[in-house]
Amino acid sequence: MQSSFLNDNFLLENKFSEQLYHEFAKDLPIIDFHNHLSPKDIAEDRQFENITQIWLLGDHYKWRAMRANGIEEHFITGDASDWEKFEKWAETVPFTLRNPLFHWTHLELKRYFGVDVILNKENARHVFDHCNNLLRTGDFSVHGLLKKMKVETLCTTDDPTDDLRFHQQIKKRGFEIKTLPTFRPDKAIFIESQGFVKYIQDLGKVAEIEVNDFSSLLKALQKRIDFFQDLGCRLSDHGLERLTALDFSEKEINNIFQRKLNGEKIEVLEAEKYKSAVLYQLSLAYHEKGWTQQFHLGALRNQNTRLFNQIGADAGFDSIGDFSQAKVLGRFLDRLDKTNQLAKTVLYNLNPRDNEVFATMAGNFNDGSVTGKIQYGSAWWFLDQLDGMEKQINALSNVGLLSRFVGMLTDSRSFLSFPRHEYFRRLLCNIFGKDMEKGNLPADLEWTGKIIRDICYFNAKKYFDF
Amino acid sequence: MQSSFLNDNFLLENKFSEQLYHEFAKDLPIIDFHNHLSPKDIAEDRQFENITQIWLLGDHYKWRAMRANGIEEHFITGDASDWEKFEKWAETVPFTLRNPLFHWTHLELKRYFGVDVILNKENARHVFDHCNNLLRTGDFSVHGLLKKMKVETLCTTDDPTDDLRFHQQIKKRGFEIKTLPTFRPDKAIFIESQGFVKYIQDLGKVAEIEVNDFSSLLKALQKRIDFFQDLGCRLSDHGLERLTALDFSEKEINNIFQRKLNGEKIEVLEAEKYKSAVLYQLSLAYHEKGWTQQFHLGALRNQNTRLFNQIGADAGFDSIGDFSQAKVLGRFLDRLDKTNQLAKTVLYNLNPRDNEVFATMAGNFNDGSVTGKIQYGSAWWFLDQLDGMEKQINALSNVGLLSRFVGMLTDSRSFLSFPRHEYFRRLLCNIFGKDMEKGNLPADLEWTGKIIRDICYFNAKKYFDF
Amino acid sequence: MQSSFLNDNFLLENKFSEQLYHEFAKDLPIIDFHNHLSPKDIAEDRQFENITQIWLLGDHYKWRAMRANGIEEHFITGDASDWEKFEKWAETVPFTLRNPLFHWTHLELKRYFGVDVILNKENARHVFDHCNNLLRTGDFSVHGLLKKMKVETLCTTDDPTDDLRFHQQIKKRGFEIKTLPTFRPDKAIFIESQGFVKYIQDLGKVAEIEVNDFSSLLKALQKRIDFFQDLGCRLSDHGLERLTALDFSEKEINNIFQRKLNGEKIEVLEAEKYKSAVLYQLSLAYHEKGWTQQFHLGALRNQNTRLFNQIGADAGFDSIGDFSQAKVLGRFLDRLDKTNQLAKTVLYNLNPRDNEVFATMAGNFNDGSVTGKIQYGSAWWFLDQLDGMEKQINALSNVGLLSRFVGMLTDSRSFLSFPRHEYFRRLLCNIFGKDMEKGNLPADLEWTGKIIRDICYFNAKKYFDF
Repeated sequence: MQSSFLNDNFLLENKFSEQLYHEFAKDLPIIDFHNHLSPKDIAEDRQFENITQIWLLGDHYKWRAMRANGIEEHFITGDASDWEKFEKWAETVPFTLRNPLFHWTHLELKRYFGVDVILNKENARHVFDHCNNLLRTGDFSVHGLLKKMKVETLCTTDDPTDDLRFHQQIKKRGFEIKTLPTFRPDKAIFIESQGFVKYIQDLGKVAEIEVNDFSSLLKALQKRIDFFQDLGCRLSDHGLERLTALDFSEKEINNIFQRKLNGEKIEVLEAEKYKSAVLYQLSLAYHEKGWTQQFHLGALRNQNTRLFNQIGADAGFDSIGDFSQAKVLGRFLDRLDKTNQLAKTVLYNLNPRDNEVFATMAGNFNDGSVTGKIQYGSAWWFLDQLDGMEKQINALSNVGLLSRFVGMLTDSRSFLSFPRHEYFRRLLCNIFGKDMEKGNLPADLEWTGKIIRDICYFNAKKYFDF
Repeated sequence: MQSSFLNDNFLLENKFSEQLYHEFAKDLPIIDFHNHLSPKDIAEDRQFENITQIWLLGDHYKWRAMRANGIEEHFITGDASDWEKFEKWAETVPFTLRNPLFHWTHLELKRYFGVDVILNKENARHVFDHCNNLLRTGDFSVHGLLKKMKVETLCTTDDPTDDLRFHQQIKKRGFEIKTLPTFRPDKAIFIESQGFVKYIQDLGKVAEIEVNDFSSLLKALQKRIDFFQDLGCRLSDHGLERLTALDFSEKEINNIFQRKLNGEKIEVLEAEKYKSAVLYQLSLAYHEKGWTQQFHLGALRNQNTRLFNQIGADAGFDSIGDFSQAKVLGRFLDRLDKTNQLAKTVLYNLNPRDNEVFATMAGNFNDGSVTGKIQYGSAWWFLDQLDGMEKQINALSNVGLLSRFVGMLTDSRSFLSFPRHEYFRRLLCNIFGKDMEKGNLPADLEWTGKIIRDICYFNAKKYFDF
Repeated sequence: MQSSFLNDNFLLENKFSEQLYHEFAKDLPIIDFHNHLSPKDIAEDRQFENITQIWLLGDHYKWRAMRANGIEEHFITGDASDWEKFEKWAETVPFTLRNPLFHWTHLELKRYFGVDVILNKENARHVFDHCNNLLRTGDFSVHGLLKKMKVETLCTTDDPTDDLRFHQQIKKRGFEIKTLPTFRPDKAIFIESQGFVKYIQDLGKVAEIEVNDFSSLLKALQKRIDFFQDLGCRLSDHGLERLTALDFSEKEINNIFQRKLNGEKIEVLEAEKYKSAVLYQLSLAYHEKGWTQQFHLGALRNQNTRLFNQIGADAGFDSIGDFSQAKVLGRFLDRLDKTNQLAKTVLYNLNPRDNEVFATMAGNFNDGSVTGKIQYGSAWWFLDQLDGMEKQINALSNVGLLSRFVGMLTDSRSFLSFPRHEYFRRLLCNIFGKDMEKGNLPADLEWTGKIIRDICYFNAKKYFDF
């Protein structure tokens, strides 16, 4: 079985789709404005030892598939050798038909390594050796891999306490791919978590501010925002079940925060108030910097205690939640907008049932000041597949302006995930192409092509001001 | 770029679809049983000054698109000239690809004005002048526009305090298009709103009843229901986040209502009880009249305080809510059904995630007494587009009887929105046609054509008793 | 109008789909691991008197359609003759276009009775007589009907208090179709229901244990589980609005349970605690037996009080609820998994908006110990139609392994429902076939065919250990 199904016209169902992709989308550079790549690996231009290291370790999408396929944990995150782990993944691949992993796997093997077979147990050794040989060559260092995909700009995801030494290093040495940090202060927000007090102390240290009340916390965060800004940061990011926008007084928040620092117990409602306050203040700061704030909403994390204790977070035990989102999302954005201090914003939902809620909510806060000011963000995580992306694109089309969409991002931890931009571009061109063929859109290649180029590249460039 | 994509077979993807539309659906008259047209404009057979007046003012769908496109409010609802506003809209249109506005815009320009171009900044002046010239002619008065579209019956949406003078005028002078009021008493229900007490006083005045307790309120409402009935009213309508069906005693409600009239503060739970009571009593009255009650559920309104304060309600700052609907909807309908006093009912949901909840709930209260007694209403507002309508039609098909559906309504404030019936008919014929081509339905044009004619016209005529 | 649209390639839209179905799926035997068939009718090899008896009585899907079509209850569940009821159903059928009943009706008439017309009022008498004549022949006894469909294994749904005399009878006499009971203890869980205390007494009697506290309740349930196991039971089943997983102490539960037995009132929270406890204990017992536990979640039952009082439960007055499911579902499964006592589990959701929540939650508890350990179950009840099943298959594909899916079940009360397996197989083959034609999957018939055979038969055989 060959992966020749991944031919030039993969996902392109008619002539319009093909022309749109090949003439307008294919050759554009990539702006990957949100991912979880390692700045260290970029700074050091890491050369990976083998394909298991670069491809399987850290990829909880593959881990989940392997567990569903009846593979023992030993071969997934356990002590098995890299070869054994690869073999077990190879054995699983033919069972992933219709899962995005099936497409991703073969696109990545083909685009980076020129491998043109359907990976399986039988050809696993051959593919393993072939890829490992290439990974040892200079073209397959991290820089080589990024350049191969025409990456122009990429934004990693970084904690406020991070000293950004690798970003500094990248800047100092110069790197043709613009590599920028993103400010993600989740740990300063989750006041109920075990490590919170320790985290606040660390934050104080790195900011060189003694954090003993809410006001000094804000000062510390502001110093880190300034620092991130100096290294080119243009975006913040937050991962939350849902937003919070309760009423609060500064005195009240200060009291909650100080009691927490003193090791006292905080009530659920108090935690919500604290979060409301700190999120609000952070958003004001983002607005002042002209940053874009991102909100990834709706994940239900660490559902499996037994395996969480064994393996840890981000290991494939998260799922899609069914939280009420609409009212609190509106209240949060409105509070900032009241004083005209609402930053450019990208809203991402994890439960596809909320697509229309998010897409219409974005529309409420467009005020003409910035083209496409409030973005309904691309389908994410579990939804990062044909159906999920088509649904996001359709929801956005139906209640907003798809033409002003800032488009795709990998959100990935892997240096081999950039063909997801190709995947997005193909499916986007196919959506427009099918509409043209049906006669639902005029057969105007030039205009539609311009819109596609905007969505694939130019909108993001302009919107984020890269 | 020409709008020739809107050809005879627009949205019709095969021969069956074409035959169904052209032979069965196309020529039927229109029953528009729910809209927000101005009775005054109809009574006075208004001649609009220019296309901005008839097409852009009041159309918050277009306003939202313009804001997303980065157009300043000055050119949307501000002091810009009618020409400037039109020009900015024209500039936005090419960016609305895949939004229903793109189809609506060109269908309306073509069907009413014979304009056959894709509107854009370049041709804006020409189109503006062309349409304005036509709008000055007799055929383009309100009556002319309605007749052009073969409108047979239309139902406006009116407040109980309305003296219906324009409906009286229309009736007195005679008008070949049956123009009926609809009873929409939202303001008598929203006890927590600022203007409630003033509104109740107005209601008392127009009903010539001193409203000082719950019982006199009901008498006043009943008098207005009788008055609406005399002018041919056959429907009521309610716009709510969700229904309410708490237990209550009349004494309790009277106490709440009187305290509110005395300017006292009402608790949230009390407001819910009051709403439960007044909705219940109104529904009993509708049942007695043989009216059909409509419930539009799920909108989350006025989310943007800053722009609401500047521009007001119904200005494009509303979105889709994510309320729990099922239990309370069931309780509300059941309470009326218990004594066999449940009126014919049309249920409309705004969040498409609730399609199946609404479609199956309707089925619980069909009792064979009226064909299609509880209707799952057509996709509405943000969902009034290809995807939204197809999803509503599919949900209804899968769990109910599509064949007994009363079909489309414009819900519009614009006299140029009637091509939405054409749009609905085309997509409906295409849905059946595709099923026939695939072999999912028998290739029986005669029977399928009869069903389509029922959905497009005859079901509504019979159901509402027009 | 002929039902010749149900030809050999019904639902198969291209050559790949056709080959997959005809060469791989069509001839496989049927494992129907969840239905509501009558063990008595099987034990006695019942010969039905006429088609109304076997086809209309008890089928609340048809009843709902008839009520929506304006048929009086007299002809549905009332005193009308079997012929009159059949005639009214026949009259309704042409109005069911696009509802699954239209396909089911004609598939069943064709596959069992060779009837090849679209049923309607005119041909009703002829079809009635034709089917009744066949029903009197030996081939159309219950055994004959099951064998005609190549049923290999079937699991009925049985109450713990059931003496399973008919299952014993079937076992004793020998029957080539493996007929197994399923343990469904809903009545032991619904502590708030009227008949609860009486039910617990009955349970005690059949288990020969005096049930006077929580501990003796568990013993009685365990005895029944042992008894079911002896008769080959491999599955349990629960029908709930949502799961419950509150914290509780045994003392607390005992107190609640005993107060209930003493006729005292139980609070809502107490009922939830009791349910949390009994569900948890039952699940531990299922795990010990190596059973698979099923949870059917999300129905909102008996919404129409007036007709419920007249006709009773399971009569077509149920609908789809919109409960929050995710968090409590996660907590329930995690509690069992913490001690590694989570049984194989099939999760079914009734509201399609929850597809992705359920599909991803299943993934959290796959640990490699059993292939496809936590199953996201097939679309059910209102969703048992083309759209519903495609959506379930797509959700499972996108976030899990469709290849490991245990597939279809009828969930039916009717001996004529087995063509639903054919229906499922056709649509499944068509989904894969379309992907192959588009080039989204490799054109590898052999491998895809193997996967399809697994989903249609072999996965279930292995998973349930039949």
